Amino acid sequence: MFEAVELGQKVGKRAFKEAVAELRTRLVHAQFASTSHPGPILIVVAGLDGAGKGELLNFLGGVLDLRDVKVCTFWNETDEERERPFWWRFWRALPNRGQIAILFGAWYTRWIHLRTDGRIDPSEFERQLRRVAQFEQMLANDGATVLKFWLHITHKTQKRRLKKLKGRLDHDDALSRALWHSQHYDGIVAAAEQMIRRTDRAHARWQLVEATQARHAKLTVLRAITETLEGLKPPRPAAPATPSAPVAPVLQGVDLEQRLEPDAYRQRLAAAQAEIERVVWQAYDQRVSSVVIFEGWDAAGKGGSIRRLVDAMDMRLVQVRSIAAPTDEERDHHYLWRFWRHLPRAGYVTLYDRSWYGRVLVERVEGFATPDDWRRAYEEINEFEEQLTEAGVVVVKLWLHLSPEEQLRRFKEREQVPWKQHKLTEEDWRNREQWSAYEDAANEMVLRTSTSHAPWHLVPADDKRLARVRVVETYAAAMRARLSSST
Amino acid sequence: MFEAVELGQKVGKRAFKEAVAELRTRLVHAQFASTSHPGPILIVVAGLDGAGKGELLNFLGGVLDLRDVKVCTFWNETDEERERPFWWRFWRALPNRGQIAILFGAWYTRWIHLRTDGRIDPSEFERQLRRVAQFEQMLANDGATVLKFWLHITHKTQKRRLKKLKGRLDHDDALSRALWHSQHYDGIVAAAEQMIRRTDRAHARWQLVEATQARHAKLTVLRAITETLEGLKPPRPAAPATPSAPVAPVLQGVDLEQRLEPDAYRQRLAAAQAEIERVVWQAYDQRVSSVVIFEGWDAAGKGGSIRRLVDAMDMRLVQVRSIAAPTDEERDHHYLWRFWRHLPRAGYVTLYDRSWYGRVLVERVEGFATPDDWRRAYEEINEFEEQLTEAGVVVVKLWLHLSPEEQLRRFKEREQVPWKQHKLTEEDWRNREQWSAYEDAANEMVLRTSTSHAPWHLVPADDKRLARVRVVETYAAAMRARLSSST
Repeated sequence: MFEAVELGQKVGKRAFKEAVAELRTRLVHAQFASTSHPGPILIVVAGLDGAGKGELLNFLGGVLDLRDVKVCTFWNETDEERERPFWWRFWRALPNRGQIAILFGAWYTRWIHLRTDGRIDPSEFERQLRRVAQFEQMLANDGATVLKFWLHITHKTQKRRLKKLKGRLDHDDALSRALWHSQHYDGIVAAAEQMIRRTDRAHARWQLVEATQARHAKLTVLRAITETLEGLKPPRPAAPATPSAPVAPVLQGVDLEQRLEPDAYRQRLAAAQAEIERVVWQAYDQRVSSVVIFEGWDAAGKGGSIRRLVDAMDMRLVQVRSIAAPTDEERDHHYLWRFWRHLPRAGYVTLYDRSWYGRVLVERVEGFATPDDWRRAYEEINEFEEQLTEAGVVVVKLWLHLSPEEQLRRFKEREQVPWKQHKLTEEDWRNREQWSAYEDAANEMVLRTSTSHAPWHLVPADDKRLARVRVVETYAAAMRARLSSST
Repeated sequence: MFEAVELGQKVGKRAFKEAVAELRTRLVHAQFASTSHPGPILIVVAGLDGAGKGELLNFLGGVLDLRDVKVCTFWNETDEERERPFWWRFWRALPNRGQIAILFGAWYTRWIHLRTDGRIDPSEFERQLRRVAQFEQMLANDGATVLKFWLHITHKTQKRRLKKLKGRLDHDDALSRALWHSQHYDGIVAAAEQMIRRTDRAHARWQLVEATQARHAKLTVLRAITETLEGLKPPRPAAPATPSAPVAPVLQGVDLEQRLEPDAYRQRLAAAQAEIERVVWQAYDQRVSSVVIFEGWDAAGKGGSIRRLVDAMDMRLVQVRSIAAPTDEERDHHYLWRFWRHLPRAGYVTLYDRSWYGRVLVERVEGFATPDDWRRAYEEINEFEEQLTEAGVVVVKLWLHLSPEEQLRRFKEREQVPWKQHKLTEEDWRNREQWSAYEDAANEMVLRTSTSHAPWHLVPADDKRLARVRVVETYAAAMRARLSSST
């Protein structure tokens, strides 16, 4: 693959200067226009050691209007980053719609290193590349423009540059890193080739850049960026997602007749809470986070269940997040961004009163998301939760299920009892009219997103005592399973 | 001071239960109503070791609706926090308007520890307490409600509890911490008394709570919180700030006649840029951050100056931030919050195209801030910059000064030249009509915020070459001074 760019292409000094002057003017305009583009613009700069990535970056910095540009390197991992899933740092780096981010190495460098070192095997490498491709696909579906440059040089060129370095480098670190790269040239190139093949997609093209001559490389990249910005159009709708087939009514399987007597309730609740009290500190010590999602019908008792769970936890370790309409910063990003940004550090518990499933529930039913948006969301959410569980986070998903009759009874009760009135809004009544649309959405959600790593727990909630005990016991069981497996 | 709460107050089990039941209902209402309050609600829980702060916190967690509550402990400092000024972590913890944050120890614990240990002397302790008081004052002026509880027990009680602990504690850490507290009881109480006296203000009252009996302590705190939330009113306007006295026209002192010839320009620019290139990496190695602020008239050449400065820096170390209208999340906090949130980690450079000085420039002139708001801002900004410089950040503030005649010439040029047209907006013409109001604002800003740790540099900008050279040289000199002083 790389032979194709080992051509010895060169640009004369004067031609370079003229071309840059012309492109720069065009770029100013194009960048200004792009600020109103409905998606972010991501420029990935990667390539072989010694190919001049840093120099290229500084060149780009010299021609772009930097007021809407974010430059992100990922050298310098903080412990806040290490204590969260690998992808957190990239979500954190994503720019607003209409802004440019230049990502140095981006989500590529790590996998090439690990593969070259033999620290991951070919199938793990493939799996990670698949994930990279999905991530870029997901961003592109959301309107992002993804431009990727790989700077290539021959081993001979690399060695020559390394020799020059040796005289100058004062950092031992930098030198030994450069040596590592030279010694592993073939392995790196092989890994890079595989990586490029697997992640070169119509919506996120790699451009191989011959970097033997800096002027040539700079000009190539500058031209590509300028032309891309000039060619920005409102994103074409992504290929339509497959319309949903009829969905099995899984929720009908929930037995809403069950009841729990007060004595049994108190006993089981106390036992589970006692276990949780212990387990939460144990999880803190072992740096195991957990995420608990509460979804379900209005008035299904989410608040009361959250209360019973929290009562068993040390307040210093738990956070309750109530998910309402997104802020404007959140709307300025992919819808999953608002959930990534608040992921807790290792060892803590976060409870979500409603969650990212809003995309396939309320946003679907109310038409806030297009059918393509929410149909794609199942996969995006599964991927998100897989990343969480791979990072060691326990994901517990609870659907509190209610019969329409019981909901009506509770609504009426809320109307009557003065201190419950604020819990009942016009919107609740409107939602109730859409019962069957919500039921379809919930059925499909459970079917498509109940995975082995993050299954849905359907909690019968017509009886409040039973619901609360189930919630607390489900969490205790999930934590018990996780903590015993890790010891 | 603390004898006043060594009374042996107790609450019976039954009275406790009844009182909590009653308060809880009132609290539900009051908390719901408080979500539309125009300021955040901050509850500081501090006190002696063994006084039951953790237990109290969990009790509060059990009665509050946790969906609008943030619980923040500051045990567990991350490196991202350590690499920024001390106050960053607290700004980061501040809740939105209408939300509650419970802050465990908050900004108090550290200073009591350092003072007790003798690691800071009395005058430094006083200085930090003054800063705490100012911080709370500033939040209160912005509408925040600040409630502070200090849990007190006698040394005898503390020793008794410690004895009990000894049998149970499995962590050596926790035990040795508790021992330290017991051995330093008198010193801690003395420091706490001084601290409480210095920071007990009408807008941020300390409540001393006798914590010998847990029920009494819990009830006292719960009652205080409930009553405070019930009594929330739209914040009374703070005492009006002193109206400004006439201000000396400092900007008139800038000599706008100076010119720089092309040859001298190229030479001096190149020399300063070469120095900066080196210095920026040196600062990175030494973890010295710098912040450069560009303010000045429209068309004064801020963009071109930023460009010359950035050209000399490695793109991986610098960030350019353009300050426009705040987002809704930003409006939901004190106006300085948006600047605190983006403070870079140690070793990096941030350039601000416009800055926090918007408060006393555009917001003053256009009436977006009330006279009291912007008059208070001088002090708030000075305090902010003092905290930056104390944390080792180099703060360089540049005012690019222009004559109205030269501005007019540039506006007209922008109208003519096609690729400059986008730089000229209706707003620029409107601002120009307000020239003298802006001039007054700029004069007062320079007078009140040019401090020894962060002086204003007035850059004559009628000649672009001179302005650019001055900007670049000023930054180089500031860095040179800082880096040589630290070696």
